[in-house]
Amino acid sequence: MYTDLLNPANPTLAHRHRSAGTPGRRFLVVDPAVAELNGPRLAAYFDAQGIPTRTLILRGEEENKTLPAVHALFEALVDFGLHRREPILAIGGGVVLDIVGFAASMYRRGVPYIRVPTTLLALVEASVGVKTGVDWADPVHGGLKNRMGAFYPPIAAFLDVAFIATQDERNVVNGLGEVMKLALVRSAELFVLLEVHGRALIDSRFGGVAPAAAPAPAAAAAAATADVDAGDAATTTAAAATAAATIAPVATRVVELSVQMMLEELGPNLWEANLERVVDYGHTFSTILEMNHMAGPDGLMHGEAVNLDGVLCVVLSARSGWIDGATRDRILRVMSALGLPTWHDGCAVEVLWAGLVDSVEHRGGRQRLPLVAAIGEAVVVDDVTLEELGEALAELRALHQPGGMLHRSPVGGK
Amino acid sequence: MYTDLLNPANPTLAHRHRSAGTPGRRFLVVDPAVAELNGPRLAAYFDAQGIPTRTLILRGEEENKTLPAVHALFEALVDFGLHRREPILAIGGGVVLDIVGFAASMYRRGVPYIRVPTTLLALVEASVGVKTGVDWADPVHGGLKNRMGAFYPPIAAFLDVAFIATQDERNVVNGLGEVMKLALVRSAELFVLLEVHGRALIDSRFGGVAPAAAPAPAAAAAAATADVDAGDAATTTAAAATAAATIAPVATRVVELSVQMMLEELGPNLWEANLERVVDYGHTFSTILEMNHMAGPDGLMHGEAVNLDGVLCVVLSARSGWIDGATRDRILRVMSALGLPTWHDGCAVEVLWAGLVDSVEHRGGRQRLPLVAAIGEAVVVDDVTLEELGEALAELRALHQPGGMLHRSPVGGK
Repeated sequence: MYTDLLNPANPTLAHRHRSAGTPGRRFLVVDPAVAELNGPRLAAYFDAQGIPTRTLILRGEEENKTLPAVHALFEALVDFGLHRREPILAIGGGVVLDIVGFAASMYRRGVPYIRVPTTLLALVEASVGVKTGVDWADPVHGGLKNRMGAFYPPIAAFLDVAFIATQDERNVVNGLGEVMKLALVRSAELFVLLEVHGRALIDSRFGGVAPAAAPAPAAAAAAATADVDAGDAATTTAAAATAAATIAPVATRVVELSVQMMLEELGPNLWEANLERVVDYGHTFSTILEMNHMAGPDGLMHGEAVNLDGVLCVVLSARSGWIDGATRDRILRVMSALGLPTWHDGCAVEVLWAGLVDSVEHRGGRQRLPLVAAIGEAVVVDDVTLEELGEALAELRALHQPGGMLHRSPVGGK
Repeated sequence: MYTDLLNPANPTLAHRHRSAGTPGRRFLVVDPAVAELNGPRLAAYFDAQGIPTRTLILRGEEENKTLPAVHALFEALVDFGLHRREPILAIGGGVVLDIVGFAASMYRRGVPYIRVPTTLLALVEASVGVKTGVDWADPVHGGLKNRMGAFYPPIAAFLDVAFIATQDERNVVNGLGEVMKLALVRSAELFVLLEVHGRALIDSRFGGVAPAAAPAPAAAAAAATADVDAGDAATTTAAAATAAATIAPVATRVVELSVQMMLEELGPNLWEANLERVVDYGHTFSTILEMNHMAGPDGLMHGEAVNLDGVLCVVLSARSGWIDGATRDRILRVMSALGLPTWHDGCAVEVLWAGLVDSVEHRGGRQRLPLVAAIGEAVVVDDVTLEELGEALAELRALHQPGGMLHRSPVGGK
């Protein structure tokens, strides 16, 4: 875990992993969010370090994660004359990290790259592992997620939670969708941290202090010790800054645990020889949802889609007897309190079943569907029927009807 | 070494490396030469085996080895619905094998592919190793060879010298450019086989019997025991078919030795951690020549460019004292007798020097130029100067002037 990457006295971003014999310069790829929120600080940082840079801006939305973006990056790399052992710095969300990683795997049959995730989602997901890739927009078959890509590790990932300070709430919650997934299948500790500190983590932007332009609601800003078990967060009136200081070690622990869980799961299985992966939790039905509802500001974000898949799998887990009703309800309450989406009108049974069929194909002919066996423990099943899926979906829908425990749970809470 | 791949009784092409759980079908990529010369036999073969196929034809010239060809292959793969563990069969020359390997490395982050080389060059070069890739045609920087690619091994390579029967003489000689390279840096035995049997190998199409449409010159067709030391091949009047039978074991030995040398060199260094590679012999100055003179029927072929580089390095080796004049002349005589090109008007010193500078960049800052220390043995040097390169080039040019030993050595001649 690095801190203070943009501090002009910190040499990491300018100098780490510069090979001998390569020029004293850096090629950066950033997304518009980074350019807007951190562009001036980045420029000042590299000025202070005396390192000239060339910057390519690539759009960060999922619908831009396609081959033309890779092509644009190739053009810039040729023009820059990137050396074979000169690392590219990818600074941004998951889309930029994925595009850069994929292009780096190909350029000169592989040049080094460094991941600098600037969103919570990218910190806990895209920063880890060796997967890179782009989607395929096909006129007949629709969007095919990550249809082209490479297993290609970065030479380093510089993780700095401070970047979260510039994210809006929706993006932080989006990242928590992946954290929740890891909590459910791997870490009861992580789940409890979300349960107790979740709202405070969101409101304090993981201790980075919320952006001045969009102050956190005072009522929730410092719920560092909130009790959300009953569905209503306790709040304090302490100043947001104090809360941020209190929450900082919690924030670090949440990111560290998430990354550690990812590494433990991915490490022994980098090339996916084993197709039974508990980190596929939330990634069975979500892919098709994400591709179907990708475009525009109302499009589903990755962590949101993962949670829609995850909540359905919680219901499936309970219906299959792997967890009891109390455990199910406890999970649903935390999801709801964090503002994680638990319903989307695109959740039709035939769509979700098609997603499962795609996954079967991708997973070597079996469902290998991870469910929740207990908070922090997964079980992988192969035998979910279309009928069972339909029943679970109906139950989830009913929970959102008047009188259901998830009725009206918009982003942000109760 | 496989034989008789197109024999309807041979299950290899239809069934080898078909994973359980994948459909009983094959996706083929071929080049127009294969479609024209072997298309009907391929169709009859798969009919006899009862295996339906889908075939994509990709142009096989170097100028088509670009990203649009990869894109066309992606479209066909999406349309076909290729499974994650369903191998693509690439049947053709090096360009098709390179494009398919690169696309396979990306599609679903890697699907299996099988190389079926149909040219001598592809048999001894593109069939071996893990390199795949395409060129980059840049408006400013010109052609950049293999600028994008992947290190991605096939799951199998089916080698069958019988495909050489359908090649024309120029293509066979082109393949011998790579064989000669391997002979010079790795195998005196291979060099002697070329010296003694070279013309017979060409005229008999490596024992596959020359195509009826272009019969080999009777005078050279059966020079199985030719003595080319003095520059004039002894010939016999035996029928071409008899000669082919005599030459068959020699042909097999030449291909086997070539592949074995390549494997021995590439095996311990698949990802090129070691940048000092004797198989880079003939690949220092040739890349820029090839890219500068690529287009059209008069364009340089890869093996031709490699020999132009190789002959210059022979002169450099002699000038540096690594080999004596007699050895130099012996090598030049064999190149000439095989019809390997030893001069091209694009060989200007500033062009060749630019090629060396590119290579230095690609080889981690040093020339790492392989020269010939003895027939079958390489030495790698780092200290060739522009002046030395110019002098060697002038000497090579002079050898082609009236009175020089390489004066008027057109393709096929002495």
